[in-house]
Amino acid sequence: MPEPILFYDIPTKYTHQKAWSPNTWKTRLCLNYKGLPYKTMWVEYPDIEAVSRSLGLSPTSTKPDGSPKYTLPAIYDPNTKTAVVDSAAIARYLDKTYPDTPRLIPYETDALHAAFEHVFIPTFLPDLIKIVAVPTTESLTPRSEAYFRAAHDITDPGPKREEHWNGFKKALQTFAQWLDADGTGNRLFFLGNKIGYADITHAAFLIWIRIVLGADSKEWKDITTWDGGRWARFMDAFAKYETVDEGDYVVDHD
Amino acid sequence: MPEPILFYDIPTKYTHQKAWSPNTWKTRLCLNYKGLPYKTMWVEYPDIEAVSRSLGLSPTSTKPDGSPKYTLPAIYDPNTKTAVVDSAAIARYLDKTYPDTPRLIPYETDALHAAFEHVFIPTFLPDLIKIVAVPTTESLTPRSEAYFRAAHDITDPGPKREEHWNGFKKALQTFAQWLDADGTGNRLFFLGNKIGYADITHAAFLIWIRIVLGADSKEWKDITTWDGGRWARFMDAFAKYETVDEGDYVVDHD
Repeated sequence: MPEPILFYDIPTKYTHQKAWSPNTWKTRLCLNYKGLPYKTMWVEYPDIEAVSRSLGLSPTSTKPDGSPKYTLPAIYDPNTKTAVVDSAAIARYLDKTYPDTPRLIPYETDALHAAFEHVFIPTFLPDLIKIVAVPTTESLTPRSEAYFRAAHDITDPGPKREEHWNGFKKALQTFAQWLDADGTGNRLFFLGNKIGYADITHAAFLIWIRIVLGADSKEWKDITTWDGGRWARFMDAFAKYETVDEGDYVVDHD
Repeated sequence: MPEPILFYDIPTKYTHQKAWSPNTWKTRLCLNYKGLPYKTMWVEYPDIEAVSRSLGLSPTSTKPDGSPKYTLPAIYDPNTKTAVVDSAAIARYLDKTYPDTPRLIPYETDALHAAFEHVFIPTFLPDLIKIVAVPTTESLTPRSEAYFRAAHDITDPGPKREEHWNGFKKALQTFAQWLDADGTGNRLFFLGNKIGYADITHAAFLIWIRIVLGADSKEWKDITTWDGGRWARFMDAFAKYETVDEGDYVVDHD
């Protein structure tokens, strides 16, 4: 058994549900699906840059003002003394380093997975973000909330809420069309009969919605009825990979 | 050996290079790659609807005025008495009906291929179309040219030509990034070491560019140097699948 991988994630202020970021959920689902031992290191937004630098990680993008932007998820693997940032890079690292665990990105699907990543956010997010951004912000600790609000353009959907919700429904219909393209009508996962990284990406974002809107909300119940109830079945398949460990705080917690 | 499949394609006015449509080239490459016997049935634009109806095919989309739009490629397979329209549907039909030929869309990649199709045109075409639309129109027979011009918004790139060419260069860089996502630096095809339907889609559009701008044009020579010369190597791999048979005209030719 390898030593636990350190997994850097962003906490909510809730004690019952600490993990919320869809991007870090991708990595958590990867680790849980592979059954690799790991420990969560909780990092508040204002601390992401310092933690990333201390791990020797590079920024993943650029802020509007041109300065480097550091992001999570990141991992540090003590077994190989390697730090990796970005959920797709982490998935590829885990596939390569732990070849006896279930593969997330099979060889034949690697470049198609990269194309999928390119199309996922522009398909899934534009309407959804209008509905989920405010509750997401409210779920953060006060320090992280202030930082997150300053860094992002958070607006309420207002009177267009229903329009955005229908737009998001259409986005999920597009995913259902891709899954049904083979004509069998029984493909639940992108890879067919097993979970892969594309499915983990999609599940991570659905988990985010369920957390910030609430599993009992009308919106979440709506989603579970769309496309013939396929997203309820899809999420059922992920239930056993949603474990969140207690973890440690990287910086002393308020 | 099965009986020849009838393959409905759109001709240019040139005798040296009759096939040009990137969408029908996809199907031609699929048939050639699989080594299936077929015969081209040349159809001028104004005749596509009548030919499609005679085969019992449905329209694939809707015109701006709401009326049904019929498109090629289509095939009629006398071995199964089946007509199929749309290049992706044809690829899936051929995989299923001729399982002993090289598979275009492996099982694990089906839904990812559908996502790729969704992202291919918006990535590849917006800048390119400004440069290639006029020479494409000019390559058609007079009857098809008049029809095509009326159906499409054909404009010259004018002074923005270079800007559009750089935009297209960036689109190909995006494809190179997807192919390089596995970190090996030696993935020429989406499926890795063999051609698949995503590659055929990409090759079909590159063939179109080469035909309408000319293999000796500065633009085509440019492309073969981009991304470390990978598109020259990529097209070399398709050379043996570019055969165009003489075929027959569906309607008496002018």
